[in-house]
Amino acid sequence: MSFDARAVLDARARTSPPEDPEVAAERRQAASGWFRELRDRLCAAFEAIEDDYAGPMNPDLAPGRFERTAWERPGGGGGEMSVMRGRVFEKVGVNISVVHGGFSPEFAKQIPGADRDPAPGGADGAGAQFWAAGVSLVAHMWSPHVPAAHMNTRHIRTTLGWFGGGGDLTPITPHAPDTARFHGAFKAACDAHDADYYPRFKAWCDDYFFLPHRGETRGVGGIFYDYLDSGDWARDFAFTRDVGLAFLDAYPAIIRAHMNRSWTEAERDYQLIRRGRYAEFNLLYDRGTQFGLKTGGNTEAILMSMPPHAKWP
Amino acid sequence: MSFDARAVLDARARTSPPEDPEVAAERRQAASGWFRELRDRLCAAFEAIEDDYAGPMNPDLAPGRFERTAWERPGGGGGEMSVMRGRVFEKVGVNISVVHGGFSPEFAKQIPGADRDPAPGGADGAGAQFWAAGVSLVAHMWSPHVPAAHMNTRHIRTTLGWFGGGGDLTPITPHAPDTARFHGAFKAACDAHDADYYPRFKAWCDDYFFLPHRGETRGVGGIFYDYLDSGDWARDFAFTRDVGLAFLDAYPAIIRAHMNRSWTEAERDYQLIRRGRYAEFNLLYDRGTQFGLKTGGNTEAILMSMPPHAKWP
Repeated sequence: MSFDARAVLDARARTSPPEDPEVAAERRQAASGWFRELRDRLCAAFEAIEDDYAGPMNPDLAPGRFERTAWERPGGGGGEMSVMRGRVFEKVGVNISVVHGGFSPEFAKQIPGADRDPAPGGADGAGAQFWAAGVSLVAHMWSPHVPAAHMNTRHIRTTLGWFGGGGDLTPITPHAPDTARFHGAFKAACDAHDADYYPRFKAWCDDYFFLPHRGETRGVGGIFYDYLDSGDWARDFAFTRDVGLAFLDAYPAIIRAHMNRSWTEAERDYQLIRRGRYAEFNLLYDRGTQFGLKTGGNTEAILMSMPPHAKWP
Repeated sequence: MSFDARAVLDARARTSPPEDPEVAAERRQAASGWFRELRDRLCAAFEAIEDDYAGPMNPDLAPGRFERTAWERPGGGGGEMSVMRGRVFEKVGVNISVVHGGFSPEFAKQIPGADRDPAPGGADGAGAQFWAAGVSLVAHMWSPHVPAAHMNTRHIRTTLGWFGGGGDLTPITPHAPDTARFHGAFKAACDAHDADYYPRFKAWCDDYFFLPHRGETRGVGGIFYDYLDSGDWARDFAFTRDVGLAFLDAYPAIIRAHMNRSWTEAERDYQLIRRGRYAEFNLLYDRGTQFGLKTGGNTEAILMSMPPHAKWP
């Protein structure tokens, strides 16, 4: 699945004309502006959940609020982490970043379009071999009845430009109506753009979030896509916005459906064991985590995805 | 450091005559017998600690006892896990294994002597490309004042045969007398065999147990060695036995020095955060873990090393 998309993009590297610099600058601006707006809307939705919580657990905790920390990338650009530790969200991170810079010649060979002139520079990344912006979210919840979730969308530009992202849901014990709601939102977003997207991107997600050593998937899936360049930038950007909005529609509703239920110590304990699997996936298999940590990325921002508390009893 | 030892072993592959089959069988027997004996002595020492504990914490827990589980390797051989969850040891695993089988041709190229005839077979591994036996131990303690520890020794045979292993100490807060005792025991074991061993194997350990993304070592080190074949099998086996005995001498004494002290919730919390680093090392960098999980090893036995409880707050 992933190979097809990558092959299409590689083929484009040989045929597509260089982008007009003004158009390129507008696109960078539009994409990074959207990721920031989506971040703000997600944080607002999650803070409203903290306010509206009316369950019996965590009686001593106040409604959570996000704390923001900006960071700079030594090679160019930077980002902003937003982290909340509340009474519904045990730990949730919503990170945005806009980075640019160079690859080593060897690494550039692995990145579509990165070994071809001209560079995608401009005022915010002049002469850079790549420019990348995105929003990334991981939520770990206090309640074993509320699924954990992950969402990420990104736009990457070398001499080519493409979108990627997706979202997946990790319930402690799968609950069919939640799974249906989550997949339904992504299916609707996909179908509005291309009838092939949902089946392809759902299968890609199932394939990606799999732990071979456990013989299990990380959760109940969602969608995953990468190297998306249909040839129509505006269309791909609109799809990527819709993926973010689908998540914003589905996940807060799933949280609200369960957040006021109490839980037992045994249910919580089982949640912590399942979170061990989540940690295993992130450290053993997740490409973003491995790539980020091994290329000098911001360790705190990358490991924001780790569960606040996990067990391997 | 590791490259030197590997190069010596690779050179030997071109010059050493085939081993007499009776001698080979005796050596397999002697090595696997020793690993089993060391396992029994370590388990007895740890159970005695559980009996002798007289501290104020964990008042409701009974002295722990090891539980044994045998497993078979589909490709040949198997092992025995011994796990104890007690009142001093939160989780300790002592695993032994004796396995044999074949490598894929591609993988065999990475293993000294594995792509050369004849195979190291015999009654317990006829026609196999490799035979390997070892003992492996990881201890995670309830008390933040008692260091975690890891020890492993192994003997691997292809058309060549070599020893490897080591031990390292991971205190939550380093304590100089413990560090001195642990390193002192290994230094004495090393110095009795070769004056070069301790400085080489200590440096190799520091190099191996390092987390680049954190810029920190996993703990206060110890020794690490691999591909050890001096040309005198009996000498290398005696050294490997002494490494095990040094650990058996030092680690229980370090536990006993601190086990009866109480601790605060803040100290325990910090311990759980440090254990997150331990989990990061094992899943991101440990060669044995990565190799085992990605080649269909016994997941439960491999992940016995994971901390029972960890935090990424």
